[in-house]
Amino acid sequence: MSAPLELHPDRLFPAEPSTRAIARDLYASVADLPIISPHSHVPPEWIAEDIPFTDPTSLLLTPDHYVLRLLHANGIDLARFGRGRDTPLPEAEAREAFRLFCSHWPVFRGTPMRFWFEAQAVNIFGVDVRPSAGTADQIYDTIQAWIDSPASRPRALMEQFDIAVLATTDDPLDDLGHHSALRAEGYARRVVPTFRPDRFLEPARPEWNEIVDELGELTGIDVDSYAGFLSALENRRAYFKERGAVSTDHSHADLETVILSPAECERLYADARDDKLGTDECAVLRRALVTEMARMACDDGLTMTLHPAVYRNHHAETFRRFGADVGADIPISVEATRALQPMLSAYGTHPNFKVVLFTMDETTFSRELAPLAGFYPSVYLGVPWWFLDSPDAIKRFRKSTEMAGFTRSSGFIDDTRAFCSIPARHDMSRRLDAAALAELVAEHRLEVDEAAETLHHLVAVSPREVFRLDQS
Amino acid sequence: MSAPLELHPDRLFPAEPSTRAIARDLYASVADLPIISPHSHVPPEWIAEDIPFTDPTSLLLTPDHYVLRLLHANGIDLARFGRGRDTPLPEAEAREAFRLFCSHWPVFRGTPMRFWFEAQAVNIFGVDVRPSAGTADQIYDTIQAWIDSPASRPRALMEQFDIAVLATTDDPLDDLGHHSALRAEGYARRVVPTFRPDRFLEPARPEWNEIVDELGELTGIDVDSYAGFLSALENRRAYFKERGAVSTDHSHADLETVILSPAECERLYADARDDKLGTDECAVLRRALVTEMARMACDDGLTMTLHPAVYRNHHAETFRRFGADVGADIPISVEATRALQPMLSAYGTHPNFKVVLFTMDETTFSRELAPLAGFYPSVYLGVPWWFLDSPDAIKRFRKSTEMAGFTRSSGFIDDTRAFCSIPARHDMSRRLDAAALAELVAEHRLEVDEAAETLHHLVAVSPREVFRLDQS
Amino acid sequence: MSAPLELHPDRLFPAEPSTRAIARDLYASVADLPIISPHSHVPPEWIAEDIPFTDPTSLLLTPDHYVLRLLHANGIDLARFGRGRDTPLPEAEAREAFRLFCSHWPVFRGTPMRFWFEAQAVNIFGVDVRPSAGTADQIYDTIQAWIDSPASRPRALMEQFDIAVLATTDDPLDDLGHHSALRAEGYARRVVPTFRPDRFLEPARPEWNEIVDELGELTGIDVDSYAGFLSALENRRAYFKERGAVSTDHSHADLETVILSPAECERLYADARDDKLGTDECAVLRRALVTEMARMACDDGLTMTLHPAVYRNHHAETFRRFGADVGADIPISVEATRALQPMLSAYGTHPNFKVVLFTMDETTFSRELAPLAGFYPSVYLGVPWWFLDSPDAIKRFRKSTEMAGFTRSSGFIDDTRAFCSIPARHDMSRRLDAAALAELVAEHRLEVDEAAETLHHLVAVSPREVFRLDQS
Repeated sequence: MSAPLELHPDRLFPAEPSTRAIARDLYASVADLPIISPHSHVPPEWIAEDIPFTDPTSLLLTPDHYVLRLLHANGIDLARFGRGRDTPLPEAEAREAFRLFCSHWPVFRGTPMRFWFEAQAVNIFGVDVRPSAGTADQIYDTIQAWIDSPASRPRALMEQFDIAVLATTDDPLDDLGHHSALRAEGYARRVVPTFRPDRFLEPARPEWNEIVDELGELTGIDVDSYAGFLSALENRRAYFKERGAVSTDHSHADLETVILSPAECERLYADARDDKLGTDECAVLRRALVTEMARMACDDGLTMTLHPAVYRNHHAETFRRFGADVGADIPISVEATRALQPMLSAYGTHPNFKVVLFTMDETTFSRELAPLAGFYPSVYLGVPWWFLDSPDAIKRFRKSTEMAGFTRSSGFIDDTRAFCSIPARHDMSRRLDAAALAELVAEHRLEVDEAAETLHHLVAVSPREVFRLDQS
Repeated sequence: MSAPLELHPDRLFPAEPSTRAIARDLYASVADLPIISPHSHVPPEWIAEDIPFTDPTSLLLTPDHYVLRLLHANGIDLARFGRGRDTPLPEAEAREAFRLFCSHWPVFRGTPMRFWFEAQAVNIFGVDVRPSAGTADQIYDTIQAWIDSPASRPRALMEQFDIAVLATTDDPLDDLGHHSALRAEGYARRVVPTFRPDRFLEPARPEWNEIVDELGELTGIDVDSYAGFLSALENRRAYFKERGAVSTDHSHADLETVILSPAECERLYADARDDKLGTDECAVLRRALVTEMARMACDDGLTMTLHPAVYRNHHAETFRRFGADVGADIPISVEATRALQPMLSAYGTHPNFKVVLFTMDETTFSRELAPLAGFYPSVYLGVPWWFLDSPDAIKRFRKSTEMAGFTRSSGFIDDTRAFCSIPARHDMSRRLDAAALAELVAEHRLEVDEAAETLHHLVAVSPREVFRLDQS
Repeated sequence: MSAPLELHPDRLFPAEPSTRAIARDLYASVADLPIISPHSHVPPEWIAEDIPFTDPTSLLLTPDHYVLRLLHANGIDLARFGRGRDTPLPEAEAREAFRLFCSHWPVFRGTPMRFWFEAQAVNIFGVDVRPSAGTADQIYDTIQAWIDSPASRPRALMEQFDIAVLATTDDPLDDLGHHSALRAEGYARRVVPTFRPDRFLEPARPEWNEIVDELGELTGIDVDSYAGFLSALENRRAYFKERGAVSTDHSHADLETVILSPAECERLYADARDDKLGTDECAVLRRALVTEMARMACDDGLTMTLHPAVYRNHHAETFRRFGADVGADIPISVEATRALQPMLSAYGTHPNFKVVLFTMDETTFSRELAPLAGFYPSVYLGVPWWFLDSPDAIKRFRKSTEMAGFTRSSGFIDDTRAFCSIPARHDMSRRLDAAALAELVAEHRLEVDEAAETLHHLVAVSPREVFRLDQS
C-alpha cells in the first residue's frame, strides 16, 4: 500500500506547544487574505489568453529550475525533463520524466521544493499518495485529469488562489500587448508589468549596441548620446507606468553605484557605442546607469528592486545544450554599504524613492541590509530570495534583521514562474512569519495583539506600501 | 482604555518549560550583582557635577541614535527630535517629539530598543501604559515628574543602578578634570577614563597636523619625529592611567596591523607632517600606529579594545545638517586573521597584553574571532556590539563562539551614552547568557552547577580580569 | 566528595519533549552501526604494528591541538604538555600536565572538546568523576590502568569501536609499507591510505624542487617537463590506488582553479624548476595543478577532498618553538563559486568525478556550497570541519544547506589523529543528525519513516557512495 500524502495543519510551526498554539492563531488570522505578488515571472499571456496547461511534466517539472537542478545533481540528464527542446515532451516521455521525479522523491526531503510540491499536490491537484516509483503514474493521471478540467485554466486559478495583484517581468522593448489587452477588457484582477532593463544597462553584453539601436527606433529618440539614451529609457519607463507598472527590476553582478560627470558619461557611452570600451569601463558605465535608474525612480515613482550577485550559467556545457535558467546559476558574495553609498547619498531620502534590496548572501542581513533599511526611508529589506526562500533561511532572515524591526521589509515576493506554486509559497511565508512572531510572544518580547497586527501588516500592508499599489 | 505596560519576569527566556525553569534560576543568581561597565560613552561631567536631566525628549530621544535612526527610516526628520541644535527643544516641541516617538511605537516591535525602553519606563520611570499617540502626554508627564525628583540625578542613579565601575571615553588631549575631581573628593563608585586616540592615529584626517601640534604643546615633547610623537602618546597614556584608565579604545576602517622599520616609520611620519602622504600611505602609517598601541599596552598594561569597520556618515546631507552620530553609520565587512597577524605574532603572548576584538560582522565569530581567542592568551572576544546588541544576535554570538568556551569573552560591554538604559542593557545580557547556559544544561551538555558558576564568571569575573580592574 | 561524571542518554537532543522523543528513536536506529572513517590522521603503524599507548598525557593531550590551544589561550605554555620534544614526558611531568588539564576543566565548558573527552572517559576508560585538581591523579591512574591492559591496543579498539573503514593521510613519496603489511596479512578491517600531495602542488614551498627530484627518482619518470611531472604524480596516484586509496586530499590557501594551455603550463613549470617563478605565478601554477588533480580523478576515480583556507602557524614564536599543528592555525574566508568554475565547468559532470568541499567559513554553506552541490552531480558538501565540528555549528550546517537536501553531503568525516575520540565524534554526528531530522518531523516537514531512512543513509550509505567504498 502506498504511503498517504497529507498536509498537517501545524506544518512549519515550532514544536513547543505554547509557541505553536500562538503561531496557529496568528496564522489563522491571515491564512485567507488575498495574495499580492508584486514580483513574479509568470508569462502575461497565460492570463491574457487563459491558456490551458498541457501535462504534469511541462507544468511542474520542465520549467522549474529548483526541481531540475537537484535531479541533475542526483545524476539525471536535464534532457529527460524536456529542456533543450521547444515543445512539450510526447506523452510517453512526459510520463517517464514524471516517474523519474517521483522515484527520486527522497532527494527533496528537507527542501522547500518538497513543501511547495506537497501543498500543490494536495490542495490543488487532489493527490493523496506519496510520490514514489510505484505511485508516479497514478499521480500523473490525477494531475492530468485536473489539468483537463476547465476549472484549471489560469483565470479560474487567479480566482481560486485569490491573487489580487500579479506583476510580471518584461523587457523594455516589449509592447506589453497582453497587459494592454487585460486592461482593455477590464479584467478584474490586477496584472501589471515590471520594467527589467538589465541588458540595456550592461554595455559588455554582445547584443548591447543592437538593442540600443532598437530602443532608439522604438522610441523615436536619438540614442547617439548618453542623454538621448537616458531619454529613451525614461520614455519606456513612462510607457510601462502607463500600462500599470509599479516597479523596475535589476540583476547585475554587484550592487555598485556611481555618479559621474555628464562629460564622463558621454565619453563612456560614446566608446561603448563604438565597441571600444574595455571590460572594466563597461562595468563603470553599468554602475552609472543603475544609478540613473534611481534618479528616474525619484521622478516617476517606480519602486526599484535589486537582485544582485549571481554567477549565471556556471557550467559551460549545460549552457551550450540547454541555455539559461536551468539551475546552473550560483550565488556569489555581495557588498552593499560601500556599493550603494553614492546612490543612497544622492537619493536615499528622496520622498519618491523606494528601493528593495534582495540578496543570496545572507551575511549582509545583519551587517549591511538591516542597518541600511534602518536608516534610509527609501530602503526596504527584500525578503529571502532564491536559495534562501527555504524555511530555515527565512527564519534566519527575521532573526538577523531584528535591528530594523518589521516595518522595513518588503512583504513576501514569490519571484516564480511556477504559477501553481504561488499559493504554497505565500503560505510558507505566512506560516513562518507567524512562527517568528509567536516566538517573540512566547519569549515575552511582544504582546499577542501586537504580533497579530504586525503579521497583518506584513501580509496585507507592506507590499502595498513598498510597491505603491494604492497610488498607481 | 490604554494597553498596560508590564515586564514579564520570564522575558527573553526560552519558551520550552524545562529550559525556562533552568534559565530563571540561573538568572536569579546574578540579577542583582553590581554593574561593571568598562566601556561606555557617558559624559563624566554628569557624574562629577551630578547634573540633573532636563526633559524626557533630551534624555531619551535626542541623544539616542538607535531610536532616531529607525524613526528616520520611518519617515521623520531628525530635526524634529532636537538634532542639529545646541540646546534642548522648547517644551512644546519636546512634547511633540515625544508624541511622534510614542505614535511610532509599533516600528520598534521586535527590536532591542523596545526592550531597553520598556525596561527603563517600568523599572525606572514608573510608566505603566503602552506608548501610543493617546498615551504620549501621560508618559511624558510621568517621566518629567521623575526627572524633577532629586532621586533622579546621576549620582543617585549610580547607587540605584548599583554601577560599581563606569568607564567613559575621552580624547588624549582631555585634562580629565572631571575624573580628577571625582578622585579628589573620594567618590565611592569608580568612574574611570578611556584613552581614545583614533584621530591621532589617522594622518588622513584634515585636523591631524593641528592636533599633533597640540599634543606636542600639551606634553612638552618634541613631536617633529615619529619617535617623539610616540613618546607624546605614551606620555598621555601614562596621564590617563594615573587617573584611573584601564583601557584604550580604537575604531578604524579595518583591523590591519603592520610593523615597519624605524626608518620607514620616520619617513612616513615626516611626509604626513608635511601634508604630502597619499591616502594609501596614510593607511599604512595608521596601521603601524595601531600596532604601536599594542606595543605600548605591553608596557603599561592598558587593555586594548578594537571596534572596527563602520562606514561613518553614510548619507552626505544628513552629515551636513546634523553632524556625526545620528544613526547614519553602516557596518562593513572586516577581516581579522591576516590583519592582526603582525600585531599578534609580535605581542600576542606577552603577559601584559590584552586585546578585545569587537565586530559588527558576525561572520567573523566562528571563522576568525573564536579561533584567535581560542589560541592567544591576549585575545578576548568582545561581546556583540552595535547592530548586534540585540537578543537574537547575542544568542548567535554564544552559539558561534562555542569553540573558545566561556572564558575567552570580555564580559558585557554596554558601549552606550544612554545612561538610564545601562541597567536594561546589562539585564538583557544576563538574561540571554542565562538562557544560553540553560539550553546547554537542558541538552545535557553542561551540569547546572557548572552553568551557575559560568554565569557568575561572565557577569562578575570576566570584566574584572579582561580590564584588570583588580590590579589598577 | 567529587562530582560524578555521567553521560546522559539524551545529550545533544532538543529539550522539547516531543522532539526529543523522536530524536531518541531515530538515534537508537543508527547508534550501533559500524564506523566508516574515510578521512582521518591516525598513523597507520598504530594499526599495522598494534602499538600500545604509553600514558594518558601522550595519548590525550600532547597530540590534540584542540585541547592544547584552549589551554594555551588560558595561559599555559605548550611545553608543559610535551610539545617541542621527541619523546613522551617523564611520568612526573606527564602527571603534572594532566593535573593542569584537569584543573582547567572549566575552560572547556560548552566546547566539543568537553563532549569528546567525557565520552571517551566514561565509555572507554571507565572514569566516573568530573575532572578537577582534586581528581586529576585518580583519573590519570584509571586511564593508565586502562592503557596497560592488552584490550586497549589499537587492534582491539578497532574491534571495540567497530571501525569498518579507516583512511589515513599519506605523503606521495610514502611507500605505504604499513598498508601493504596489513593487506599482506589479510587484516579484516579496512585501513586505506589517502594521497595528500599539497607540498608537490605548491612551487612556492622552499623544499619543492627537492621533493620533485625525489618524486622523479622514486617513479623513474623524467620530471624535467610539466608533462613528466604530471606522469609521475599519476604514477603515485596509481600506486596509492593499488594499495587501497579511495581519495586524495588537498589543503591550500584558497579554492582557485585554472586551466592553462599546455605551453603556459610548461613555461611556468620550467621557471619554477629554475627557482625563478614569482609568488603570484607560483599560485597560478598551484591552481593549475589542483585542476589537473581533478582531471586525473576523472581517470582513476579517486574522490577529491578540498580542505582550504587556513592561515597556518599564525604565531611566529610558537612555530619556532613547537613547529606546526599545535593549535596556531586560524581560518580565513574563502570563495567557491568563481574559484571552482574552471574546474567544475570542465569536469563537474564527468561520471567518474567526485569532489567534497569542506570549509571553515560557514558563510559559504548557503551561499555557495549548497548551490554547487545542488547542481553538480560531482560535488558533495563536506560536513562541518575543524572549528565547525562543534554541536551548534553542525546544527547550523544542516539548516544552512537545506536547499541541497540530505543526499548531497559527504557523510561524517572525523579528520582526527585522536584515535580514542573517533567513536565520540561519530556519536556526536549521529546524535545531531538525529536531532535535526527530529525537528523536521516535529514541524511536520518530514514523516518519521523518511527521517529514519535519511539518517541511515547519512550514516551508512553516503560515505560509501561518496568515497566509492563498494567499488574499489
